[in-house]
Formats: sequence, structure tokens, C-alpha cells
Amino acid sequence: MIQQLAVGIDIGGTNTVFGVVDRRGNLLFENTMSTRGFEDVTLFVDALYSRIAPLIDQVGGAEQIKGMGIGAPNGNFYNGTIEFAPNLPWKGVIPLSNLIKERFGLQAVVTNDANAAAIGEMTYGAAKGMKDFIMITLGTGLGSGIVANGQLIYGHDGFAGELGHVIVEDEGRLCGCGRYGCLETYASATGILRTMEDLLKKKKTDSLLRTVPPGQLSAKTICDAAIKGDKLALEAVEFTAKILGKALANAIAFTAPEAIILFGGLTKAGDLLLIPTRKYMDRQVLKIWSGKVKLMQSQLKESHAAILGASALVWEMKD
Amino acid sequence: MIQQLAVGIDIGGTNTVFGVVDRRGNLLFENTMSTRGFEDVTLFVDALYSRIAPLIDQVGGAEQIKGMGIGAPNGNFYNGTIEFAPNLPWKGVIPLSNLIKERFGLQAVVTNDANAAAIGEMTYGAAKGMKDFIMITLGTGLGSGIVANGQLIYGHDGFAGELGHVIVEDEGRLCGCGRYGCLETYASATGILRTMEDLLKKKKTDSLLRTVPPGQLSAKTICDAAIKGDKLALEAVEFTAKILGKALANAIAFTAPEAIILFGGLTKAGDLLLIPTRKYMDRQVLKIWSGKVKLMQSQLKESHAAILGASALVWEMKD
Repeated sequence: MIQQLAVGIDIGGTNTVFGVVDRRGNLLFENTMSTRGFEDVTLFVDALYSRIAPLIDQVGGAEQIKGMGIGAPNGNFYNGTIEFAPNLPWKGVIPLSNLIKERFGLQAVVTNDANAAAIGEMTYGAAKGMKDFIMITLGTGLGSGIVANGQLIYGHDGFAGELGHVIVEDEGRLCGCGRYGCLETYASATGILRTMEDLLKKKKTDSLLRTVPPGQLSAKTICDAAIKGDKLALEAVEFTAKILGKALANAIAFTAPEAIILFGGLTKAGDLLLIPTRKYMDRQVLKIWSGKVKLMQSQLKESHAAILGASALVWEMKD
Repeated sequence: MIQQLAVGIDIGGTNTVFGVVDRRGNLLFENTMSTRGFEDVTLFVDALYSRIAPLIDQVGGAEQIKGMGIGAPNGNFYNGTIEFAPNLPWKGVIPLSNLIKERFGLQAVVTNDANAAAIGEMTYGAAKGMKDFIMITLGTGLGSGIVANGQLIYGHDGFAGELGHVIVEDEGRLCGCGRYGCLETYASATGILRTMEDLLKKKKTDSLLRTVPPGQLSAKTICDAAIKGDKLALEAVEFTAKILGKALANAIAFTAPEAIILFGGLTKAGDLLLIPTRKYMDRQVLKIWSGKVKLMQSQLKESHAAILGASALVWEMKD
């Protein structure tokens, strides 16, 4: 029997979302729970089981399910583990796929959220039919999933695709990783916030954002102001696009992708970021690729993308 | 019958070398001819045929040969073409693999020299058994071949792996590609020469190289002087290593390779370049990889490497 359903689970620092998905990417059932409050990961897996088991029953039981795909920060595909995730409550190396397999009696596969997004996009979204593309997730940080020859690149240790930690500025901004000048300190929700704060300090230009109470400035308020034509907010977007465009130009020189697909909070403003990023990317890239590599937005509904991405891992499993 | 032999051809701007190789990487016969003097590429293919056909006869005829692998600048694996190669006499798009197939009656496959080197290293050299590594060729320019999941990454258009054209310095040195600050303007034979010339101009330090007649300074003379302890030459090597090490650290963040393998003229000095490059690479790389990614020299004999690399393409062919 060819099982037509998969469970997708996306574990975030705050919430975990999950659902049952068919091969076409239809989300049949979904739900959410807090990731927090489970000191031990086995208690978390128990709680997941108590919520997902009823969904599985509703679709006809475990024999309908090909497997479970899990996207998680610092997820390692080879080992089925979460390794030293700074934003999760469980420290060290967590053998998540084994815990899930034991509790659910189903095959399980783990990878990081950006890799899951890439597989999701290839299975159900903008990258359908593509064999070479790069997925960039612009959230709190910058994640990436690289697909070449139709396969996700996991690398020797399972942690490939850390474009957020390519150094783009010598002695640049301090990054959470302890180094300076990483791409994600500029091109991410927190990156554009740092840029805006710098601009508000350095420049005298009027801005809608000068009246925002301290601590309430965010990537969203910056993008909203930019859409309204706020000059300083537009400058922050342009600066972000310039650094991102340059980094993408270098990424193209690596794997010569057909497309680069952007996903995540920072891309909600659409063309506002996309157009200048494409401009800088095409200006900086080796001429053979100028104007040839598509820069596009994800075609997965954002509210469903994490579950879809995780579920799509299942279709890549060997039978 | 499993054919045990392959023909390897490496087309360079000046010379073309070729030979017959067995599955273990033993070079049975080899020869060389000038690449120049053939206005039309079909004349070049005729000349190749007249030289290679006798070698094929000596090993028992075409039925012993699985196919022909060709490494060439701007070689495109997908199309079997050489496309717009600035250093070759034939302009535009040259359908080389078809010309070779017709003339020899054998299967033929084309790729660029750095990709051929990567496949050669994986088949017969330092990367035997590796599934994820990056080959860097440091010659006149900087070429690279990226292997992930045990496969060479050709990219959407067949031109992936242009690490030489990653921009490492904003508004840096003018590159042959028309842009500024490309890695190969620093980390290559011509790159270290430019660095040395700059240092000789800018600094007053004594150097063995001050007495070298203009136009005779070369990567080789610089490395020789550095080996003898010449301070200024050592400074040029250190500067080269710093830029290369940083670029390799960023490359690791992409594909998380098990090893980076250096090949080509500039690596003849061995540890002189390898040790400082490794130092800067490990210092700049994301901590999870610091000290973990091998930086090593090619294990192919340089005089044979080009033929071996090209021949190894044949074993990757589908039967």
C-alpha cells in the first residue's frame, strides 16, 4: 500500500505546530501546543503524542501514515537529533527521532527548519520541479536550505547550509555565534532592527519611527513605515537588501541555482525588499548569471509552511 | 563486458595532454600536443584523433575503452560544450563532446578543469571515500569543484563552483571578469604576484625579490624566497592565506565538507601556505566546524592529475 499521508511537526522556541498532510500538500488537520514547560524531552514527546494520536485516528489510524517529519532548530538529519539548540529547553544532544519512533511506532526524520522549508517548497511550492535552488528563511535569524542535483545538501556532519553565518563584514556586528559580521546580523528581523536603531541615532532625518516607544520597534513596524514611504525606514530596507543581495551573489557562484526563494517574516513586505535585493544581487553577481537567477517569494502559506515543510521530509524517505 | 580503460584529455590554453588510464588510476600511455595553431576546432579534434587512435590501438582497440573524459576551461557538463572560453582559440559555444563522439566513435563527457580535478581526487586521490568535499585549484586563477552527497554540483546551468569569483573585498582588485574584489585576484598565482608587487612598492623591508628583473617575478620565485625566510615574501604568503582562509571558512558554512583539498602551482610550497591558511580558516569559521574540516593537499601527481581527473569522469558515466 502506498501511504498517502504524513505527519508534519515544527518545533519552535515558543510553539510547536503539527498536522496531517496529504501528498499534494493539503493540510487535513492541524494544531499547536507550547514548546515550553517540559523539563524533560520525553514529557514533551508524551504531550505531542496525546495531541497527535487523535488526529491520526481521525484519518484512519497509523497504517495510513507513511511517517513523521520534524523541523527543529539545530536538527540533524543524519543523527535524527537536535544538537545544542540555544532556543530550546533541552540541552545537549536530544535523540528526537528515536523518541518519536518509540512513542508513535512510526518512522520519523528530523532536520532543521530551513531545510524543511526547502523540501516543502520543492514538494508543494515555488520550487516544484526545480533541481537546484536555495531557500532562505528570514526570521529572527537567517536560515538556509541548499538543494543541488534535486537533493538537499546536508554536508559531512548534517549541518550544511549555514548561510546566516557567512561573514559579510570584517569586524562587523557581533553575532549570537560569538563572531563578528555574520550575514544574519544584517539580513534578518533582528538585523534590520539593529540597522534602524543605528540610523535613528546617526541621522537627523524625520521618521515615523521616532515616536515608537523604546522596545516596540520591530521588523514589522519598520516595514510598515517603509511601505508608507518613510525615508529612514526605506534606507534601512535598502541597506538590508544591499548586504543580502551581495551575499546571494556569492551564493550563486557556489551552486549556480535556478532560483533563490525567500521565506519568513521579513519577506511579508514583498517587493519592498525583493526588488532592491534583486538589484544588488544582479549587480554583484558574475556576469554569466546576471538577470538569470530568479529571486522569488515562497509560495507556501506562511501559517502552514512549517508543517508542510516538515511533512514533506516524509516523502523523501526511502520506502 | 566491463571496460577497464578510459581516455583522459585535458585542454589547456597552451597545451593539451591526454592518456589512457585504468580504473585504479594507472596512466598506461600519455602524450601532449599544442592547443594552438588550429583555427577550426574540427582540425584540433582531427589532430587529437591522429595522436590518440594509436594509443587506443596499443591497449587493444576501442572496445577496451569505456569512454573519453575531457577537462577544459569553461567546459559545460550538461551541454558537452566549451562556452566562451577566453583562453582558447575557438570562440562562442563549441560542441566538443559531439565532435569527439563522432570522430572517435566513443562516448565523451566534458567538464571544467576544477570539476575534473575533484572527480579525479575522489576516484584516485585524497578524497577517496569522501562524499562531501571541496576541491580548490590554485593556478593562474582559482577554480573549484564542489562535491556533496557524493556528487559533483554542476548547478542549474552547469557552471556551479565559481569560488574564484566570490567577492571577498568590496572595491578590491580588478578581476578578469570585469568586477572588483574576486577571490582569485588574491588567492592564485597571479594574486600572490600582485600582492608581492604591492608590498615591494609600499614597504622598505629588504627582500631577495628586489633584485629580480621586472617581469620575472612569479608565484614560484615568491614561494622560493618565502621558503628561504624572506620576510616580505612570507608577508605575501600570509596575506594570501588570510584571504583564502576567510573565503574557505565561508565555503564551509555552505556545504559543510569533510575536507578542502588544494591543488595546483601555488600549493607546491606545501605547509608554507597550508598552515597559515588553516589557521585563518579555523579562526573565521563557525565554531561547530573549527578544527574539524581537513585542509589538505591533493594526492594526485601533478604531472598526471589533469589526465587522471578527466579520465575519472568516465567512471561516473551511466553504462
